[in-house]
Amino acid sequence: MSLPALLNHLKQSAALGQVAGLLSWDQETVMPKRGAEQRAEQSGTLAAVIHARDADPRIPDWIADIDRTSLTPFDRRNIDEAQRAYDRATKIPSRLAEESAKAASEGQRIWAAARAAKDFSQFAPALKRNIELKREEASCLADPGTDHYDALLDQFEPGAKAAELLPLLEELRPALVALREKIAGKPEPEPLAGHFPAADQLTLADTVAARLGYDFEAGRIDTVVHPFCSGSAGDVRITTRTDEADPLNCLYSTVHEVGHALYAQGAADPFLPAGDYCSMGVHESQSRFWENQIGRSRAFADWLYPAMDDAFGGLNLDGPDALYAAVNRVKTGFIRTEADEVHYNLHILLRFELERDMMAGNLEVDDLEETWNTRFARDFGLTVPDAGLGVLQDVHWSLGLFGYFPTYSLGNIYSACLDRAMLADLPDREAMVRAAETQPILDWLRDRIHAKGRVLPAPQMIEQATGEAPTATPLIDYLEAKFTALYDL
Amino acid sequence: MSLPALLNHLKQSAALGQVAGLLSWDQETVMPKRGAEQRAEQSGTLAAVIHARDADPRIPDWIADIDRTSLTPFDRRNIDEAQRAYDRATKIPSRLAEESAKAASEGQRIWAAARAAKDFSQFAPALKRNIELKREEASCLADPGTDHYDALLDQFEPGAKAAELLPLLEELRPALVALREKIAGKPEPEPLAGHFPAADQLTLADTVAARLGYDFEAGRIDTVVHPFCSGSAGDVRITTRTDEADPLNCLYSTVHEVGHALYAQGAADPFLPAGDYCSMGVHESQSRFWENQIGRSRAFADWLYPAMDDAFGGLNLDGPDALYAAVNRVKTGFIRTEADEVHYNLHILLRFELERDMMAGNLEVDDLEETWNTRFARDFGLTVPDAGLGVLQDVHWSLGLFGYFPTYSLGNIYSACLDRAMLADLPDREAMVRAAETQPILDWLRDRIHAKGRVLPAPQMIEQATGEAPTATPLIDYLEAKFTALYDL
Repeated sequence: MSLPALLNHLKQSAALGQVAGLLSWDQETVMPKRGAEQRAEQSGTLAAVIHARDADPRIPDWIADIDRTSLTPFDRRNIDEAQRAYDRATKIPSRLAEESAKAASEGQRIWAAARAAKDFSQFAPALKRNIELKREEASCLADPGTDHYDALLDQFEPGAKAAELLPLLEELRPALVALREKIAGKPEPEPLAGHFPAADQLTLADTVAARLGYDFEAGRIDTVVHPFCSGSAGDVRITTRTDEADPLNCLYSTVHEVGHALYAQGAADPFLPAGDYCSMGVHESQSRFWENQIGRSRAFADWLYPAMDDAFGGLNLDGPDALYAAVNRVKTGFIRTEADEVHYNLHILLRFELERDMMAGNLEVDDLEETWNTRFARDFGLTVPDAGLGVLQDVHWSLGLFGYFPTYSLGNIYSACLDRAMLADLPDREAMVRAAETQPILDWLRDRIHAKGRVLPAPQMIEQATGEAPTATPLIDYLEAKFTALYDL
Repeated sequence: MSLPALLNHLKQSAALGQVAGLLSWDQETVMPKRGAEQRAEQSGTLAAVIHARDADPRIPDWIADIDRTSLTPFDRRNIDEAQRAYDRATKIPSRLAEESAKAASEGQRIWAAARAAKDFSQFAPALKRNIELKREEASCLADPGTDHYDALLDQFEPGAKAAELLPLLEELRPALVALREKIAGKPEPEPLAGHFPAADQLTLADTVAARLGYDFEAGRIDTVVHPFCSGSAGDVRITTRTDEADPLNCLYSTVHEVGHALYAQGAADPFLPAGDYCSMGVHESQSRFWENQIGRSRAFADWLYPAMDDAFGGLNLDGPDALYAAVNRVKTGFIRTEADEVHYNLHILLRFELERDMMAGNLEVDDLEETWNTRFARDFGLTVPDAGLGVLQDVHWSLGLFGYFPTYSLGNIYSACLDRAMLADLPDREAMVRAAETQPILDWLRDRIHAKGRVLPAPQMIEQATGEAPTATPLIDYLEAKFTALYDL
């Protein structure tokens, strides 16, 4: 009876994890301002309860007692994930966990002030503290003789190794730099311009979300400053934002979060770890696939142009071709979150390289800003004017999130792999996208990704889904083909 | 160090209790439909975590270890409440707790169907089951030789005894019946009539809530079918509803919930039991005070009439006197939740009497409908036409809530006691209400009730606040004076 006991324990922990997710959603969307202090106490207490459950001393006994020979791969994975959470919860001393949580909370506050002042030196001490704590955490978790960075990466991308990611990600750089340089000499397409009322943008966002298969009976859309997706299975909530000068912000934020939400609504099992999402990289592959391969395709512009023309009572662009060019406008800029498909992964590569060097002790925090600026000039051909547009732009390091950035690029790589395989399987996909009748596309992803949960490690699952081990080639080919045609290179 | 350990334990349990409250709020207001199944798992798991904390075996050790002699009354009460929760959590076997939860959930479903069918016999078996389980629960909790009903009452009204409540509540009956009979012969005042758009009602609700002191930075108003108030201190959310033919429904629902919310926003300490609300009766005294003694006063009509006239672009009534008469219209009806001030407590008395008899074994469920109808005719002078308008109208018994009803009447009794004392303290209160500048009224309640938490039992706290032990006399006097004038009796 050890397996049922373990699974029941995991199920209840997952339920409490969902409650923790709801507390965050509530905090970002509807919580009254003065509720913040109580919320911190509520979230902290719940986190401690979940931590104690992950570290429950019965877990190793249950696991030792289970005969693994006759188990399904699903349950074997549940056991492995229970062990992984147990190790994490027991190897990190509670003193360290508390200090890390405190340093993250303080780090974010200090970072926000430093960014507003565009002054890296204000943030440097907090960053040093976070790195110190994360190094200690990694040394608690890492097996002897392994790369300590992998212990951090593993939280977001289970089983991933930096040594394997590095060639995969670095392969992108020369291709992207070459593409960027070629496009730089070409005329810019006409941008979308005008005034786009927020209410109309939100109505369009609802329409697009519903067309792409987002189930409003298992979700809702609210408005926030930084959009996100939260929840699983029957309760998956997304958020978006509006800028009345730029309806593409709301539109593509929404499509991106819908991509995450479709994965979460299709969760194999919302209460067991083997039924959870496979990895952050795979999660991002789903959001980026719907955002870019579908949402920024020429075929979708055929549906989108009349929909937007209707939603806003006319557009300054004169047809789907012009809209397609506008939504794929390439322009070198400083900010990752505003980057187009050509530049986006160059931003990630920079961060991945820098955080690897910092964690390994090959780059000191005091040299970070200068190194950032030097490498930015190398990859982007631009001089960073201030830290706000440079090293201080992202929240991640202030929260102690090291090992997170590479999952964004993995997502782009995986989405291109899936795109290539899907096109071979669904030869009439373009017609589906043109009509925004995308159910077969969603079914394909449900079948090959969503229903698979976390049973296989991400690279194997992608290989099983596509017939090929994932490489950067499909992404490079996709970007070169798309932008060569768009910019007449 | 036993006291700090105990208080820290209580604080974390309170934080988890607040999370459980948020799950309920979310479920009633914003949760997607398909989230229900996961929510049941989440709420159930969290309830089990809280139960295990209440029954933590360290609690009796901590308590035994504390030297009570030098403690503040606040901390003495914290200890007593920890003991009370511990007893409750350990005396009721988990088998019984689970069966009760299941019977409540099934009972509610069966009740809803029976009420729709107006057929008491469909509900009778579920009610029998609930009574059986509640009797068993009471026998686990009650001290030998005490009234078992008190063990149920105690959950809602700590320390209350049915034997003491009975004369207090029963004293109301002859006075209310006499008042009802006198009014029956008088002409009815003109009702408010027209079409009142929901959006305008909600705008007025916001205005009224803010005028009465509800802090929107520590709360929000949402729309639901059955209004309620949820939360404490910095996060107290209320809900309301609208009926476009009757703006008084939304208005007085809102004022009622604002009364609860003002108490909760003024909580002495949101994380310790001695800082919590005193009892359900006291909670109801706050909602009823703002709803009736303030909201349905002649003085408030002076502010409300122009506010409503403005909100709805004109009213069919020709001034504050007519509005005052309309919001205090007395009409004998079958439904408790629609009852006016004269009839309301007659509804409660009926239920109190019946549930006492059922729990004591003096009334069988099979005879309940007939007994209800007979006694209803006695008190209200009307024949109940069907069970939907009679014995099946309230949800409480279906959920196993026995001992809850009397707290409604206690609330009305207490609110009249507070009203009388406050008028002596604030001779210009009428002018404040006329201008809807009610801060001194709220300050008075904050000082004498809200800030007092649960340190004293309700009757003592009311006595301390008013200078007199609570009796039914202030309520009877208030109702006789008000309706004698209104109906020219």
